[in-house]
Amino acid sequence: MSYSPTDRLQRQVAELIVIRASGHLADQQRRYPRWELSNTDLQRLLQQGVGGVILLGGSAVELQQRTLMLRRWSDQPLLLCADVEEGVGQRFEGGSWLVPPLALGRLYQSDPQRALDFAERYGRCTGDQARRCGLNWVLGPVCDVNNNPANPVINVRAWGEDAPTAGALAAAFQRGLSRTGVLGCAKHFPGHGDTSSDSHLDLPVLPHSPERLANLELPPFREVIAAGVDSVMTAHLLLPELDQAHPATLSKAVLTNLLRDDLHFGGLVVTDALVMDAITKRHGAAEAAVLAFEAGADLILMPADADAAISGLCEAFSSGRLPEQRLETSLQRRRQALDRIQKPPSPDQPQDTPLPSEAERTLEQELVAACLHLQPSTGIKASQGVNLIRVDGLFPCPVLSGTAPALRLPEGQGFKSLVIHSQGISPWQHQTDAPLALDRLGEGPVLLQLFMRGNPFRGSQDSIEPWSAAVQQLQSLHRLAGLVIYGSPYVWEQLKTVLNPDIPAAYSPGQMPEAQRQVLTTLLNHSHTTTGNADFTD
Amino acid sequence: MSYSPTDRLQRQVAELIVIRASGHLADQQRRYPRWELSNTDLQRLLQQGVGGVILLGGSAVELQQRTLMLRRWSDQPLLLCADVEEGVGQRFEGGSWLVPPLALGRLYQSDPQRALDFAERYGRCTGDQARRCGLNWVLGPVCDVNNNPANPVINVRAWGEDAPTAGALAAAFQRGLSRTGVLGCAKHFPGHGDTSSDSHLDLPVLPHSPERLANLELPPFREVIAAGVDSVMTAHLLLPELDQAHPATLSKAVLTNLLRDDLHFGGLVVTDALVMDAITKRHGAAEAAVLAFEAGADLILMPADADAAISGLCEAFSSGRLPEQRLETSLQRRRQALDRIQKPPSPDQPQDTPLPSEAERTLEQELVAACLHLQPSTGIKASQGVNLIRVDGLFPCPVLSGTAPALRLPEGQGFKSLVIHSQGISPWQHQTDAPLALDRLGEGPVLLQLFMRGNPFRGSQDSIEPWSAAVQQLQSLHRLAGLVIYGSPYVWEQLKTVLNPDIPAAYSPGQMPEAQRQVLTTLLNHSHTTTGNADFTD
Repeated sequence: MSYSPTDRLQRQVAELIVIRASGHLADQQRRYPRWELSNTDLQRLLQQGVGGVILLGGSAVELQQRTLMLRRWSDQPLLLCADVEEGVGQRFEGGSWLVPPLALGRLYQSDPQRALDFAERYGRCTGDQARRCGLNWVLGPVCDVNNNPANPVINVRAWGEDAPTAGALAAAFQRGLSRTGVLGCAKHFPGHGDTSSDSHLDLPVLPHSPERLANLELPPFREVIAAGVDSVMTAHLLLPELDQAHPATLSKAVLTNLLRDDLHFGGLVVTDALVMDAITKRHGAAEAAVLAFEAGADLILMPADADAAISGLCEAFSSGRLPEQRLETSLQRRRQALDRIQKPPSPDQPQDTPLPSEAERTLEQELVAACLHLQPSTGIKASQGVNLIRVDGLFPCPVLSGTAPALRLPEGQGFKSLVIHSQGISPWQHQTDAPLALDRLGEGPVLLQLFMRGNPFRGSQDSIEPWSAAVQQLQSLHRLAGLVIYGSPYVWEQLKTVLNPDIPAAYSPGQMPEAQRQVLTTLLNHSHTTTGNADFTD
Repeated sequence: MSYSPTDRLQRQVAELIVIRASGHLADQQRRYPRWELSNTDLQRLLQQGVGGVILLGGSAVELQQRTLMLRRWSDQPLLLCADVEEGVGQRFEGGSWLVPPLALGRLYQSDPQRALDFAERYGRCTGDQARRCGLNWVLGPVCDVNNNPANPVINVRAWGEDAPTAGALAAAFQRGLSRTGVLGCAKHFPGHGDTSSDSHLDLPVLPHSPERLANLELPPFREVIAAGVDSVMTAHLLLPELDQAHPATLSKAVLTNLLRDDLHFGGLVVTDALVMDAITKRHGAAEAAVLAFEAGADLILMPADADAAISGLCEAFSSGRLPEQRLETSLQRRRQALDRIQKPPSPDQPQDTPLPSEAERTLEQELVAACLHLQPSTGIKASQGVNLIRVDGLFPCPVLSGTAPALRLPEGQGFKSLVIHSQGISPWQHQTDAPLALDRLGEGPVLLQLFMRGNPFRGSQDSIEPWSAAVQQLQSLHRLAGLVIYGSPYVWEQLKTVLNPDIPAAYSPGQMPEAQRQVLTTLLNHSHTTTGNADFTD
């Protein structure tokens, strides 16, 4: 095909845009229709030359079909990525969902070699399954150092709470990933770990000096770059000591002076999603893309309006605001990255299953077991009572399902499950010493299972649930049969300070069914799950 | 391949067994591991010659891959079926989920021709999508006459509340289905509509005389047989006037004398699932299969133990308890049915998408619109309050999801959603006049959305929720902003007797998101859904 110079520029610019699609095949299955383009728009943009797609939603099997579909709609090799930091199963049902990285960061303190081995297998498992699903770019490892437990957006996603741990494990993950022929992405540059506001909602400020950054934030990025990571994702953070005007994503001081010049990173620089409020509150879609490019980014992720971003960039190149050489350099970096990718299977080849192999299942189980904390006890003896489960939200609720051990195992021992969540009747009453409205929960001992990990978008909601007081309330009434925390080590550490040491209790960093099974078979003294669903259909 | 006579008998018998598999690809994804065979067992049984699989669970896209997988494991053509009475989307996410048949049974009273046209398109849509998913046998139409509103298991699954309606519409469905090259199945012979206990839990008794059966229960079966249905499924019902000892599934009087001889049905007779308690409480897996075959069945669906059923049948044929001619006849009926099936696509052909076409989407929407009942009103004006949603259970909860209009549309108008369900904190208090514990629900007007349809397995649970009194309670406090019933016409009719005619209210037989959208855009005076999810990821 031959194109006019304008068309040619437009197609070249389009190559550098990464748009968002649902992993489901049909428009009406999209979970976030506001953010996920319709098939008509996707097809049009891919035909216009858009070069990348970020996917979310659907199962691993659906994703495999979806990536084939996207490839058919394009006449060039695509970058196909997803935020599968914790394994493909974190985002796509049926894949391996692994314990959050911080669990290995904790393990590293007592057994660094074991943690490093795990991190490398973690990367290999994630890359292999991503490839089998048709992805070629994993948006990980997180290189942020979670030195601020109040961080609402990084938290257990980080590989460590100090720079050496985070750097060593993130690099091990990257080494495992590299072996699978899938690209990695170090994020969020220059470090998002020490923020206590959420960049999805507003622009956090990191007041640190270049010296402090060099000591705490940057070392993990240096290590992962040395391990050969292919791309770096920028953070939507203001670092006034480096650039008073622009967040890192749009800052030449950060992306060019610091990342390119000082850290000598020669790979792809990709923005974090430009639809996030930290950016859109300040800039239109076209201007944000131009500013990011001007600052030193190569790829524009999820612009609020892809067409506007493309026209804005074209105009900036035509007018000379952006030098043409920058375009050529970014295109070349993209080509080089694509050359490192293992070729995707052709549509008429029989495909590998995207689902876990035996070895990958073993890894899931070993990771859960290695990161579990059990408070020694004689196990839960109660044969009836309330199985009180706290989850963030229900729609969707990946941690619970008809066969979730968190429901089924206590039910098999006579407990009645009661699930509390943000869209249900509140279990709280306004009494400081007795915050749980016990009349709403029913009689008998209470097994408390809290699924809590510092999720983004939830602001301070978790902290307004007075679980410490609730634990004390139940203990004083001799009604606390057991306590399990799934997710945040900080919640576990906080509750342990009030927990009677005789109470059977456990902490699992992972929230997945395998973690529930391991915790509850131990706490309930089950040898094995025997409680299938009584109904044979629904 | 050549087999020894014993092996040969075993393979022939195995052809007549239909085993159950999850529609998901991996063992750990099974929702009902007690009933759904592991891949190892499936593969072994298919290699031993088992000739049919019934599938449940997973998405339409997963089902398509799953049926390819099952075909690869077998060296013969398989019967692959599912209970997709209400469209593929009823069981497999992403397919078309259509209004329950009884909705058309009601429409038939005022506009029979329109209802008949709809029923035929309904059958065509279901068959076409089933075929695109790799199924070749739809376990419908239901031919039961739901003349007993208390029926816990048939209810809205029936095409009518009288014999002529049920017969005409079920036959229209079958005509539509036939055109797609997919087999149908008339069920549950000789009629399960007039039962008020649930055969999943125990054996219901139908005390009717042959004359009554001939007038009410049998005519729909006659019509659907005349329309060329390929198979008939038996009911686990005791009909003492025909057979005092055996339920229909195991009764020669019912299957041979009535169905074969009187109704002249020459196609495949398949048992309902033999794992149901009505059978397993009385017979072992081997004996149940032999009794069913002796009674006149050709195919054994979901034996409690497939290996035991196969050995039991082999022994019965070897010992002469069952004549060999019966085996040959059943095998021949199966071959003839397979000959009528449109050939499945070969694995290396590009496949049709299993997802709805534009025309099928239109059918979904037209069906919802045609069956909707709105209580004329000026619409819901309240701009805050409680969006109280009642669902059966949460895990899974196909009617709600992150983007379900039942949640999103009222939330967009300032309502706070509160979801009540069997595993949540109860909204009830023990006060006859004021059964709703309003202090648990929060302030302001209440929009009440009840998802209720006579589901099996729930016993009388629905009836112990005093919704009539709750509606009166809210009305007397002037707090009922609106009422929507999704599902059962009987619940709607009951609540209408206490409902103030000024209250905006609606009834939709369908519970799917499309029904929610149509109801709420009308009740809330929305012109269009504008409320996407505020979060751009989860």
